[in-house]
Amino acid sequence: VLGKGAGMISPNMATLLVFACTDAKLSPAAARKALATAVDGSFNRITVDGDMSTNDTVLLLASGAAGTPAIRTGSPEYARFAQALTSALAEVARLVVLDGEGARKCVQVTVEGARSDDEAQCAARGIAESMLCKAAFAGADPNWGRFVCAAGATGVTLDANAVDVVIGGVPVARAGKPIPAALRRAKARMQQREFQVLLRLRQGTGRGWMWTSDLTVDYVHFNAAYTT
Amino acid sequence: VLGKGAGMISPNMATLLVFACTDAKLSPAAARKALATAVDGSFNRITVDGDMSTNDTVLLLASGAAGTPAIRTGSPEYARFAQALTSALAEVARLVVLDGEGARKCVQVTVEGARSDDEAQCAARGIAESMLCKAAFAGADPNWGRFVCAAGATGVTLDANAVDVVIGGVPVARAGKPIPAALRRAKARMQQREFQVLLRLRQGTGRGWMWTSDLTVDYVHFNAAYTT
Repeated sequence: VLGKGAGMISPNMATLLVFACTDAKLSPAAARKALATAVDGSFNRITVDGDMSTNDTVLLLASGAAGTPAIRTGSPEYARFAQALTSALAEVARLVVLDGEGARKCVQVTVEGARSDDEAQCAARGIAESMLCKAAFAGADPNWGRFVCAAGATGVTLDANAVDVVIGGVPVARAGKPIPAALRRAKARMQQREFQVLLRLRQGTGRGWMWTSDLTVDYVHFNAAYTT
Repeated sequence: VLGKGAGMISPNMATLLVFACTDAKLSPAAARKALATAVDGSFNRITVDGDMSTNDTVLLLASGAAGTPAIRTGSPEYARFAQALTSALAEVARLVVLDGEGARKCVQVTVEGARSDDEAQCAARGIAESMLCKAAFAGADPNWGRFVCAAGATGVTLDANAVDVVIGGVPVARAGKPIPAALRRAKARMQQREFQVLLRLRQGTGRGWMWTSDLTVDYVHFNAAYTT
């Protein structure tokens, strides 16, 4: 699997080029379904600048050169193939974020306990595309209130007095109340190249996630003078 | 009229505090309607970082101390009052953008010829909230293709081969075709503190506009270290 792309990264499969090749033999339906599943669990979860590009492409080429029987949807082989393809694409998607313009970090934003998976994904995207949150990632600033605000601004069902926030495995807020003693440890986690920000909304069982970059001074320098 | 606010500026009347006082006497209905009109033409058109704050407030206080008859909706006096209030609030809204975190510019993004006013406003907001476009404003980079992309990514009806782009009164693209000789003049306009970016979509008569700041290195510095 090969991928290219660094700016205008907010694929909705809208300048991202990805080519995945396999020697497995796949029925066309199985290939289409596995690719859709894998893209949903990888490239459609990443954002660098929230600016959708005009021509994102992910291609899956299955040669059948392995000489094994055709894999069809519904079979155990299909499930294994789809999972392997998702892992491979997810790895490349993560590298695209780390290779983003000015990016030094890849942050996984996860929202759990939303009313639905759609609400969870919407809240995760709200944080992942927020300039304020992305600047906090750049500065390793455990400003968890910012993350809750960005989630709330998306309009999802959220009770600020119910939310837990966990940064890099360190709980920094429980039921909307800060845990001040944890901030120093959370900041240290945010200085790593990759970490997770987790919000638990306690409204249901919906879950969603995004990978996003930090917003750095280099991003601004890079994009402030392009044409002229 | 007094206003305060610099970060988390993307009001949907969601830490913006604005107080407008008048000695006119207004019927409660007229006061409510005039304020809604004025906010729609001012504070709901500005964005600094696209991050909605949790408690924006605009208050209108009408003392009646002027001793003039009560102004009621539908009257010529109402129309004059509503227009004056809109102008006053718009002036303060523009100053809030220029006072935004790290902001050095206030850019009016206008979209004309959309299929509807809603589509025009959606496209204008898409450009006004795009990190790529805002970085181009900071660098005075007349990267008009970026503006068209950001408008198109919102999903509004748009034909890239029909769009005109005008920067600070200088046409830089006509029907999707660049006017290279104009770029140097457009760049000079973008070095001013205030300028307009205008897109004509040629799909209808819808019109919308936003005021936005440029995305500067100072914005990132300011927001990368807040809590710790």
